[in-house]
Amino acid sequence: MTRARPGPLAISLGDPAGIGPELIAEAWARRESEGLPSFAALGGAEILQAAARTRGIDLPLKVVANLLAASEVFADALPVIGTDDGPWSPGAPSREGAELALGSLAAATRLTVEREAAALVTGPIAKARLAEVGFDHPGQTEYVAAACGIPPADAVMMLAGPRLRAVPLTVHVALAEVPALLTSDLIARRARIVAAALKRDFGVSRPRLAVAGLNPHAGEGGKFGDEEQRVIAPAVSMLRDEGIDIVGPFPPDAMFTARARARYDAALCMYHDQALIPLKALDFDEGVNVTLGLPIVRTSPDHGTAFDIAGKGLADPGAMIAAIRMAGDCAARRAGDRASG
Amino acid sequence: MTRARPGPLAISLGDPAGIGPELIAEAWARRESEGLPSFAALGGAEILQAAARTRGIDLPLKVVANLLAASEVFADALPVIGTDDGPWSPGAPSREGAELALGSLAAATRLTVEREAAALVTGPIAKARLAEVGFDHPGQTEYVAAACGIPPADAVMMLAGPRLRAVPLTVHVALAEVPALLTSDLIARRARIVAAALKRDFGVSRPRLAVAGLNPHAGEGGKFGDEEQRVIAPAVSMLRDEGIDIVGPFPPDAMFTARARARYDAALCMYHDQALIPLKALDFDEGVNVTLGLPIVRTSPDHGTAFDIAGKGLADPGAMIAAIRMAGDCAARRAGDRASG
Repeated sequence: MTRARPGPLAISLGDPAGIGPELIAEAWARRESEGLPSFAALGGAEILQAAARTRGIDLPLKVVANLLAASEVFADALPVIGTDDGPWSPGAPSREGAELALGSLAAATRLTVEREAAALVTGPIAKARLAEVGFDHPGQTEYVAAACGIPPADAVMMLAGPRLRAVPLTVHVALAEVPALLTSDLIARRARIVAAALKRDFGVSRPRLAVAGLNPHAGEGGKFGDEEQRVIAPAVSMLRDEGIDIVGPFPPDAMFTARARARYDAALCMYHDQALIPLKALDFDEGVNVTLGLPIVRTSPDHGTAFDIAGKGLADPGAMIAAIRMAGDCAARRAGDRASG
Repeated sequence: MTRARPGPLAISLGDPAGIGPELIAEAWARRESEGLPSFAALGGAEILQAAARTRGIDLPLKVVANLLAASEVFADALPVIGTDDGPWSPGAPSREGAELALGSLAAATRLTVEREAAALVTGPIAKARLAEVGFDHPGQTEYVAAACGIPPADAVMMLAGPRLRAVPLTVHVALAEVPALLTSDLIARRARIVAAALKRDFGVSRPRLAVAGLNPHAGEGGKFGDEEQRVIAPAVSMLRDEGIDIVGPFPPDAMFTARARARYDAALCMYHDQALIPLKALDFDEGVNVTLGLPIVRTSPDHGTAFDIAGKGLADPGAMIAAIRMAGDCAARRAGDRASG
């Protein structure tokens, strides 16, 4: 398949006191060696330049009016769209910084929803800080879903690294609440979205899904927990009847060995840490958070603002680079499908 | 430190229809290349020989009366103590096989408790099968604890691989029941046993323990779950007051990255899969189950009977070899301490 070359991506800064700006600068500096698609940052020109300097990068910047102009300058300078800016105070988050982060996220999302940008990459924010300046979503994923007109429950978070793709079906809830939140319908609905996205965005022609159990040994036949029999197995059976290649529920600790991972394209996990523990144990510095089921492509590095190391030249750019590369690849697949469709 | 050379280890066969016998044969065949301490199998001479043959091993065997004799023949033949035996039926567990497995476990345990063997290595059993022939313990760990006169709650299971040592504080219970089972006292009691065992058996002079939270992000300050504040933090604080080097509770998904693992000697985990998922993702073929807090040294390969691949030459001997090596190392440290004490 010849891939259409997608237009530039839009990248939001994230919290300017975190590691987002320096990683954007680092990704631009490595654009050739890493073979990255072109991208533009939304706002924060002075912050980006100051952050770049602490990593020894002399960052040429160009404020441009739109993404068409961005793609023209990308080879020679990091394109920045918009003039919102502020002082750079690494490690010291502020109300002004949160407002800048929110404005950057809003502008980058809008450009992507309007199809000017080929995909959206979001820098890491501090949710509590954004909430203080009026952000009323649990996280960026739900914000982007709302901007796309998609119910937040249908915007599916997948964590993707070189060795594992994992989808947590429940996220930021107490572990004690997880069992009651799992339903066959939830599992089936998310599995369909994941299967469709692996085809459309990841070029997996026949996606193979594997489902984890909830309990140790997947309950060992109901001896410790019956969610496998009562909730998970019926969903798997329903999905197989629909023609989706899905197996499980498996004993959770047997799902993430190298041999097991070779047999599926994505793991459906029952709770946050069931997905995130193996992902970060295996692929910490290259983990990408990608939102499936949206009309746009959206990725994010799977790490936080890391205020404690911001501005110290310590933050690993691997996940940001992987997020940019994955966003470009997914956008190219969608563009190719449109061109050939 | 000059290490005393420990006497031979006692190895139980495990279920003869599983992969235990062939792995014992394989470990003996690799005794020189792997630098293994001497060991004797308890019973099953014909089974061991038949199992060895399917792996292309022509296994010289010698039935001996005791472990002293075993150490004399080990270089030239696999020593077998006892004449219990049976037909070899890989993949087809039977009542007779379960009786043989139980007899082998009992004999190996007895020899170790009586200090004739330097350490006990147990082959994998099928618990449901053993229960049918009168075994009334949840698992081999509890059986061995009882044989040592130790309360089962003080026999602490640690999973150890080259990249991670992890201790699950709850094991074979439904995930929904885990939160109610966690108490500050449970955490403190197990942590003390782990710290003492790392010193005595693993030669870690100043053991560093890390404790995982129960909830995603360790509850994020009580936003989703309060077990961290209510149960775990008080235990950590109590242990620090006692002089134990222990930190946490940490967000569980941040505990098992390569960087995090470099900062502790053992991770205390709140539930089975929190410990087993990262261990098996990182170290599947070399995971050892070691029981801490016993007057004897006991290890086991961290895998099951694998009836489906028994007799097919497919089972990886890495975990059995690691279990034998670790048992020998721990026994040598204890012997050295006794000699120098």
